[in-house]
Amino acid sequence: MRIAISTGGGDAPGLNAVIRAATLSALSRGWTVLGIKRGYAGLLGDDEVIPLTADTVRGIAHLGGTILRTTNRGNPFSFPKQQPDGSWVEVDRSDELIDNARNLGIQAMISIGGDGSLAIAQRLVEKGMRIVGVPKTIDNDVAGTVTTFGFDTAVQTAIEAIDKLHTTAESHDRVMVLEVMGRDAGFIALHSGVSGTADVVLIPEIPWRIENICKAVMDRDRSGRKFAIIVVAEGATDEKGEASIIGESMPGQDRRVGGIAQRLAKVIQDRTGKECRSMVLGHLQRGGMPTGYDRLLATRFGGAAAQAVADGKWGHMVALQTPNIVTVPITEALRTPKRVDPSHDVVRTARAVGISFGD
Amino acid sequence: MRIAISTGGGDAPGLNAVIRAATLSALSRGWTVLGIKRGYAGLLGDDEVIPLTADTVRGIAHLGGTILRTTNRGNPFSFPKQQPDGSWVEVDRSDELIDNARNLGIQAMISIGGDGSLAIAQRLVEKGMRIVGVPKTIDNDVAGTVTTFGFDTAVQTAIEAIDKLHTTAESHDRVMVLEVMGRDAGFIALHSGVSGTADVVLIPEIPWRIENICKAVMDRDRSGRKFAIIVVAEGATDEKGEASIIGESMPGQDRRVGGIAQRLAKVIQDRTGKECRSMVLGHLQRGGMPTGYDRLLATRFGGAAAQAVADGKWGHMVALQTPNIVTVPITEALRTPKRVDPSHDVVRTARAVGISFGD
Amino acid sequence: MRIAISTGGGDAPGLNAVIRAATLSALSRGWTVLGIKRGYAGLLGDDEVIPLTADTVRGIAHLGGTILRTTNRGNPFSFPKQQPDGSWVEVDRSDELIDNARNLGIQAMISIGGDGSLAIAQRLVEKGMRIVGVPKTIDNDVAGTVTTFGFDTAVQTAIEAIDKLHTTAESHDRVMVLEVMGRDAGFIALHSGVSGTADVVLIPEIPWRIENICKAVMDRDRSGRKFAIIVVAEGATDEKGEASIIGESMPGQDRRVGGIAQRLAKVIQDRTGKECRSMVLGHLQRGGMPTGYDRLLATRFGGAAAQAVADGKWGHMVALQTPNIVTVPITEALRTPKRVDPSHDVVRTARAVGISFGD
Amino acid sequence: MRIAISTGGGDAPGLNAVIRAATLSALSRGWTVLGIKRGYAGLLGDDEVIPLTADTVRGIAHLGGTILRTTNRGNPFSFPKQQPDGSWVEVDRSDELIDNARNLGIQAMISIGGDGSLAIAQRLVEKGMRIVGVPKTIDNDVAGTVTTFGFDTAVQTAIEAIDKLHTTAESHDRVMVLEVMGRDAGFIALHSGVSGTADVVLIPEIPWRIENICKAVMDRDRSGRKFAIIVVAEGATDEKGEASIIGESMPGQDRRVGGIAQRLAKVIQDRTGKECRSMVLGHLQRGGMPTGYDRLLATRFGGAAAQAVADGKWGHMVALQTPNIVTVPITEALRTPKRVDPSHDVVRTARAVGISFGD
Repeated sequence: MRIAISTGGGDAPGLNAVIRAATLSALSRGWTVLGIKRGYAGLLGDDEVIPLTADTVRGIAHLGGTILRTTNRGNPFSFPKQQPDGSWVEVDRSDELIDNARNLGIQAMISIGGDGSLAIAQRLVEKGMRIVGVPKTIDNDVAGTVTTFGFDTAVQTAIEAIDKLHTTAESHDRVMVLEVMGRDAGFIALHSGVSGTADVVLIPEIPWRIENICKAVMDRDRSGRKFAIIVVAEGATDEKGEASIIGESMPGQDRRVGGIAQRLAKVIQDRTGKECRSMVLGHLQRGGMPTGYDRLLATRFGGAAAQAVADGKWGHMVALQTPNIVTVPITEALRTPKRVDPSHDVVRTARAVGISFGD
Repeated sequence: MRIAISTGGGDAPGLNAVIRAATLSALSRGWTVLGIKRGYAGLLGDDEVIPLTADTVRGIAHLGGTILRTTNRGNPFSFPKQQPDGSWVEVDRSDELIDNARNLGIQAMISIGGDGSLAIAQRLVEKGMRIVGVPKTIDNDVAGTVTTFGFDTAVQTAIEAIDKLHTTAESHDRVMVLEVMGRDAGFIALHSGVSGTADVVLIPEIPWRIENICKAVMDRDRSGRKFAIIVVAEGATDEKGEASIIGESMPGQDRRVGGIAQRLAKVIQDRTGKECRSMVLGHLQRGGMPTGYDRLLATRFGGAAAQAVADGKWGHMVALQTPNIVTVPITEALRTPKRVDPSHDVVRTARAVGISFGD
Repeated sequence: MRIAISTGGGDAPGLNAVIRAATLSALSRGWTVLGIKRGYAGLLGDDEVIPLTADTVRGIAHLGGTILRTTNRGNPFSFPKQQPDGSWVEVDRSDELIDNARNLGIQAMISIGGDGSLAIAQRLVEKGMRIVGVPKTIDNDVAGTVTTFGFDTAVQTAIEAIDKLHTTAESHDRVMVLEVMGRDAGFIALHSGVSGTADVVLIPEIPWRIENICKAVMDRDRSGRKFAIIVVAEGATDEKGEASIIGESMPGQDRRVGGIAQRLAKVIQDRTGKECRSMVLGHLQRGGMPTGYDRLLATRFGGAAAQAVADGKWGHMVALQTPNIVTVPITEALRTPKRVDPSHDVVRTARAVGISFGD
Repeated sequence: MRIAISTGGGDAPGLNAVIRAATLSALSRGWTVLGIKRGYAGLLGDDEVIPLTADTVRGIAHLGGTILRTTNRGNPFSFPKQQPDGSWVEVDRSDELIDNARNLGIQAMISIGGDGSLAIAQRLVEKGMRIVGVPKTIDNDVAGTVTTFGFDTAVQTAIEAIDKLHTTAESHDRVMVLEVMGRDAGFIALHSGVSGTADVVLIPEIPWRIENICKAVMDRDRSGRKFAIIVVAEGATDEKGEASIIGESMPGQDRRVGGIAQRLAKVIQDRTGKECRSMVLGHLQRGGMPTGYDRLLATRFGGAAAQAVADGKWGHMVALQTPNIVTVPITEALRTPKRVDPSHDVVRTARAVGISFGD
């Protein structure tokens, strides 16, 4: 058997551990393993396919990033192509991709990626390719699996930032607003906010009102706790369904300048008179060494992916259904995205220990 | 309502986060909260009961240890008592404990502890006390819950040690034997060994043969990888059900001198001719700041314990049944201890990526 | 003897270790110790003076921030005062401060602060107060001392960020621009850039040209290393002495929007066609637990400050002149600020290992 | 020019950063660089010489260990040789080493090692080889340089262990004895003990009396602080110049069984009645990622070593004389080993903040 592995979408801590475990598991079955560079795009370019051996994957389990590189572009069904006049159009190169894979002797593929990559995998499976998926999402927003690798590390990075901001906020009696990842799902903000004992947590699933946020800050202030930590997911909005404070924060400014944290800090400072500062955690959340939790989960996913190939589970992805690794159809996992349930015990406990969601 | 909280047994990272969340959740219900120091013993001594307020539990969620102190002694059903002649006997002081609790106005209690503390809680419940349990085991050996707080931190500490030993082992072409906690359950060794990419993992659930361990080391050596990392749970034994290498490692020595790691290093060095070193991770595994995972789980357990008190779940403990926190009867949880299942996917993947269990 | 301790200016990891060591050293001499909250302002307000005892300073050596709080405002020689019409003026309240200190029985003071706080200390000494200084600057820009506490921690935080950005930059073939502290002195950027093996380091002491930065990025690209890490001190500018790329980066925009990292990323992306991302490390550099180096240095500074009080070294500050702690006159330390010497071996080695300074 | 680099003795965090900086600095001068594996022994064996290029040293600055491997054996002046009868003798193979180096075209060598390696380098220089030294000692016991790389990392590792032991010691009212490296010099114990706020610090330079240690523990106990942290350097002894407590700790036992920490814990428990536990930090101190401080220092040392080769400083080693890197004759550096000065401000401040040295 000759299989290929690729990684697509934004990188997440643990990708290399998946690659290593899948490769070693495949080799232990006597298979040959190829690595496709830069997601699906690697099957449409030159010099992008490398052999994966025990030597290639040695010592990478604890490294961030991916030795196979990745990209946010390169959907073979709408691949960017430059026209003679210099403009760009998108063309369907999926047949070419399937041909190239066949010419390389690839009999099956393990595609590690987010919902975008998994959707592509599903379409390729429908065209006859034999692909098994491994879900990757730093936001924890893919359904069908309790969690995925990279999320625990991102939360840990956010907690360490909150811990650091705590001491400086307290020393200066300041309000610190920390923006973390989470365009649609607030898991990173929620988990890091509860673990880091933030005072306010703002997530896309619970629309906030600016009055409530300011009230939470001032209630603390009156009780003698002069500082506050606010954790906000990048996609959190107020109840009008959009960031209505934009106008208030920077009159006349292009709304694309600055992020939610910067705007919130501006408005809260104006309204409460307290010194506010903001910080965007950004790419730090993707980088670095995975936590032990993520290293283990990624290794299990890699091993299970090789098993799924052996079992012919095309169109399935591996998933954690604690305490087991299972496989679920990709279509099922993509049907409904995962979101924070506002009635879940994490949210209820957060409220009980005094965290405001601004609602 | 007036409730009390106590912590018993060896400490585990996250205890303070449980105390904080349970206290704040109780206070938010309008209850009064007392802290009992040093486990059940605090109800049998003097000056060991303190009020727990928002101020008392402020800023403790990320701290290791327990502000309520703990002890491995102090079972009220067989409490040590010194006789006039200086010798010690054990007496049943459970009735006295119940009286003292009643005199303090304690209407319900949250007991955070391991299987020993939970068994005592159950017996006190049978005598009429109203107790809710929170499971605490750094080894992850309590059934009824997917995991408990402290375990993830202990694994992370072990992984960081393995990472450090890797570089020095490789530089010197040495075999390093790392002993981690796990008298009866090998979860810490297994999870840290897989995540840290150890070469040999020895756990109580899979008896090893010294020949196989040495073979794994020499097979690596012959393939050009001159070093090896062995992770051994303190309770791992060879297939004869006891540490039969004792005699070989230190002829004529008292078998209580030195631990399994030191003995294994001695025997492997003698048999393979390779330089071997050992290290006992010991108390480092209990100490320090809990990981984000453990901070969140401990906070959820604390909140759920207060809820269980509100629901009158006497004789129940809170438990993680992913993704929910539930309550299970203590008797049920204690019926069968949790052990590593040798056919679980973690063990199978470990083997697939080349880890030897010495079997 | 009755002494007081205060902390002023931006917080830096190690402040609490100084407070603790100075307090314990003073107590061991039989002195009484007061803590003044919020810098000099604490002597001009209410309820801002607390006793410092062994209990007060217990367990704080490893904590970030300052238990005495701090402020960037509150110069007693030009103290903000609100007029009846609501406007603000600045008044000289130094005599009032001296009176208040005398009324509190304060015979000597240890003032921990940056160049601003030290300059104020010097003026108060000239008016008769007995003050010893402890230099605090996260940027390492105070002369007279080899380094100060907080700097090593800030550099470590920056290095950890660079490490994290490395893996994600490499996975995506991106250029990452990291902005670190350093308005006038580039030590944090230089030390973290060299230690973190950045590719380009931009500091205020070496003006850059945007062409050179882009050339360094593209030279790497052509040699097959498709990613690059750029570390820029917040005060670094091009050779025209100001951020001339402002116009290019955001035509028509207010120049106060966005920082140097964001602008650089924009221009480099436009000029090279490579994906660029930016990140501002900001307050993370001030927060959190001090490194061992800083804990030791801060403890030594605290002990030396108490000694300096005993020796009557008014108007002096403690300083590291390796391997000894000495005292130097504050006026001397403030005469010339410390800057990176472009001919120093750190810069020369940086160039030798391939780092571009854009010059 | 064709130069070679080797690493000898126990590994220390930062070795790879030295190798990288020396290699890149040499390459930037147009030189060729060879790496000799396993210290001097690599010049006496087979297949132990590799080319060092920009690719070879890429991404190693932050890795612990040494890509050139190392060994504690292999002095060419007394090299182990097996006799026909199976016994071992030591022979002088220095002439052979010099011949081999000449045959490889090596014109100069950078030898990174401790006092043993440096002494060998000096003898080889006296026989005509052109060698520059880079001092490496995790204990900080080499004179002529303020410090060396690896020491800061070892201290940081020890501090993190102390921090972890603190919480568990306090929770259980226990005495924890932590053994750190330092056969002859107590710098690691002193610096980590002061930074980690240990209660007792025992170092080779200050002989202790067991009575004083127990008194320090019991004085704390009486003041209500029921736990204590003792940091002991492996070479610390009582005032009789040897570990006289051996007999008391384990009557009838071979004195080689167990280390100083284990014995101290036994005796202190027997004498004070308090629960004592011990831990040996061991190889953790050598392993892992160097701190930022060590990465920078190691990089500077590597760059300065290449410069010293260019300057023909044979028989010199690079050294830190803050704030500069200089070169000093190896003979001078080896004349007197560096030890903790009991009258130094670090020791005096340690006493002032309440640390007992048991004297």
